[in-house]
Amino acid sequence: MSHKIAVIAGDGIGTEVMPEGLRVLEAAAERFNIALSFEHFDFASCDYYLEHGQMLPDDWFDILSKFDAIYYGAVGWPDKVPDHISLWGSILQFRRAFDQYINLRPCRLIPGIKSPLADREPGDIDFYVVRENTEGEYSSVGGRMFEGTEREVVIQDTVMTRTGIDRVLKYAFELAAKRPRRKLTSATKSNGISITMPYWDERVKAMATNYPDVTVDQYHIDILTANFVMHPDWFDVVVASNLFGDILSDLGPACTGTIGVAPSANINPEGRFPSMFEPVHGSAPDIAGKGIANPIGQIWSGAMMLEHLGFEDAGKAIVEAIENVLKEGPEQAPLTPDLKGKGDTQALGKAIAEALSAG
Amino acid sequence: MSHKIAVIAGDGIGTEVMPEGLRVLEAAAERFNIALSFEHFDFASCDYYLEHGQMLPDDWFDILSKFDAIYYGAVGWPDKVPDHISLWGSILQFRRAFDQYINLRPCRLIPGIKSPLADREPGDIDFYVVRENTEGEYSSVGGRMFEGTEREVVIQDTVMTRTGIDRVLKYAFELAAKRPRRKLTSATKSNGISITMPYWDERVKAMATNYPDVTVDQYHIDILTANFVMHPDWFDVVVASNLFGDILSDLGPACTGTIGVAPSANINPEGRFPSMFEPVHGSAPDIAGKGIANPIGQIWSGAMMLEHLGFEDAGKAIVEAIENVLKEGPEQAPLTPDLKGKGDTQALGKAIAEALSAG
Ligand SMILES: CC(C)[C@H](C(=O)O)[C@@H](O)C(=O)O
Ligand SMILES: CC(C)[C@H](C(=O)O)[C@@H](O)C(=O)O
Repeated sequence: MSHKIAVIAGDGIGTEVMPEGLRVLEAAAERFNIALSFEHFDFASCDYYLEHGQMLPDDWFDILSKFDAIYYGAVGWPDKVPDHISLWGSILQFRRAFDQYINLRPCRLIPGIKSPLADREPGDIDFYVVRENTEGEYSSVGGRMFEGTEREVVIQDTVMTRTGIDRVLKYAFELAAKRPRRKLTSATKSNGISITMPYWDERVKAMATNYPDVTVDQYHIDILTANFVMHPDWFDVVVASNLFGDILSDLGPACTGTIGVAPSANINPEGRFPSMFEPVHGSAPDIAGKGIANPIGQIWSGAMMLEHLGFEDAGKAIVEAIENVLKEGPEQAPLTPDLKGKGDTQALGKAIAEALSAG
Repeated sequence: MSHKIAVIAGDGIGTEVMPEGLRVLEAAAERFNIALSFEHFDFASCDYYLEHGQMLPDDWFDILSKFDAIYYGAVGWPDKVPDHISLWGSILQFRRAFDQYINLRPCRLIPGIKSPLADREPGDIDFYVVRENTEGEYSSVGGRMFEGTEREVVIQDTVMTRTGIDRVLKYAFELAAKRPRRKLTSATKSNGISITMPYWDERVKAMATNYPDVTVDQYHIDILTANFVMHPDWFDVVVASNLFGDILSDLGPACTGTIGVAPSANINPEGRFPSMFEPVHGSAPDIAGKGIANPIGQIWSGAMMLEHLGFEDAGKAIVEAIENVLKEGPEQAPLTPDLKGKGDTQALGKAIAEALSAG
């Protein structure tokens, strides 16, 4: 029985890094004897929108529900389609419709990548951001009044539910409990955002009573971003709302050298719906078409997908292959320009696939 | 005629850095022959709350309205009073009641302070964050439903008005137009926060037509925080909503070495109400009482206050005095521990006051 993967390359560099992600997945399938089948879709991209007037076909939910996982590239091309339309019509919709309420984003300084932070070595930065992925600040409730006049006002609701908060906290606490340092940091802003954020703090306190072995701390998002730069070694598992998790999971990888390598898993832990795996970076119209995008975020997301499907060894082997190639450095390995190398997307993808096969 | 300053030290290290701020202001008043009169208030602090059951006396608005400026330390002590109560009962209230709709926060890498970013020199980081300071995500609209049950839900509105957005954009564009690089960066998150943030983008586009000489760009907040770390030299004037401005004005100073030196001005540009000057850092209960807090944020805020009151030379002289002391380095000058020195709050305040007087 083969594991069915829906492949959506999306826009911009999504279409360039996806083939490398697939290349490495195929190498993993061969080495570990895993049956994977891929089906490609052109929807959930701005070009599809330009042709069809919508981001998705009407039966997208039925189509994608049949897959074991979704492997996504990147979406968005603001010159073609406004971002809020393209994103709400694709990944944001998938996350919600498939109840992928966990967005898991590892953040690790890898040997071979130079951190923009002074004096930081591999080992100094090694944490997970666990991001709530279905509610919070990313809401569809609100609107505009007195349109076009001086009195114009726009309102948007942040909506948080006990269910939504508790389940992401539980996931984060469980993860922290399994890690050697057993530390959980909660990101809020309860001094300024005085209704939703104090509620999140309350739920953290309540959940913490079930995990006496986990050390819990809390920072307001402003000083937390400062501490990511000043003390990235403080963090182990960071749990945050949809927006704060979004911010921290770009900032964290930036502190490790490049967001080009950062992966993410949008998980429905109960397995009722397919989970979705995509790099943290976007479609990057500015470098699209040049063949220089870093494929590692896509490849590493593939590793997370294999782990999620139960192939932990294969996932680990991919990450090792990535690390081995990076360790060779920009003189030896065909690293992309963001890694100070002279390689390109394909060459780096091939090098990682070969390292994996050589295993 | 003397300029009347309301002095509110607040909580924690606020009470320790305030005397140093005043020391330097007095030295400036003497050297530049400025008549300043100070009146001290104990309200807007958590201790006041514990005694009176409220953060402010009933007539606080009339009391403070009579002053030319408010010089604030820091407020908040979560073990005594929940943060959202202490903050909404003090600075957040002042900002709104006195319509201090601009929060201006310079961010500059100063000679003598080591940036946590590798290979960054003074000159590489030199920008302003212009933060909307009265509306947006810091709203008092919302509430809780199904309290105490599994169905519990909390909702909080983000409220943005054309008036509120346009006036902060205008200020930011004017500032950018006066700077050599004439560059304005707008922080939004219009791909995820699909109602308020696209509206902000629209207003930026509209306002930009009045400033053809200013180069405008826009980043989503997630990648913008990443770029603060990877490319801090890209930025000149960054304009942002209340929440995003809050985050960026902690992250920016962290990139310059310490948030202990960062100042802020809460400005009512029309001068209908007093403006308020306070360091970016908070009350820092963890180091309060030790006498090691960095007083520079408070002192630099005093410099911004003098500039606001029309004494540009005096303000500049204070900043120069700060720079001269920092330049001596931790071996020569009594720098505080966050600056890798062996000095304390008082010693550093005195050194800066002396440098200023020596002029
Ligand atoms: C203390 C807090 C409410 C305040 C804010 O968020 O505005 C502070 O962080 C600031 O930046 O002035
Ligand atoms: C593209 C955008 C809507 C998305 C998000 O904000 O969730 C992206 O930044 C991410 O982090 O996956």
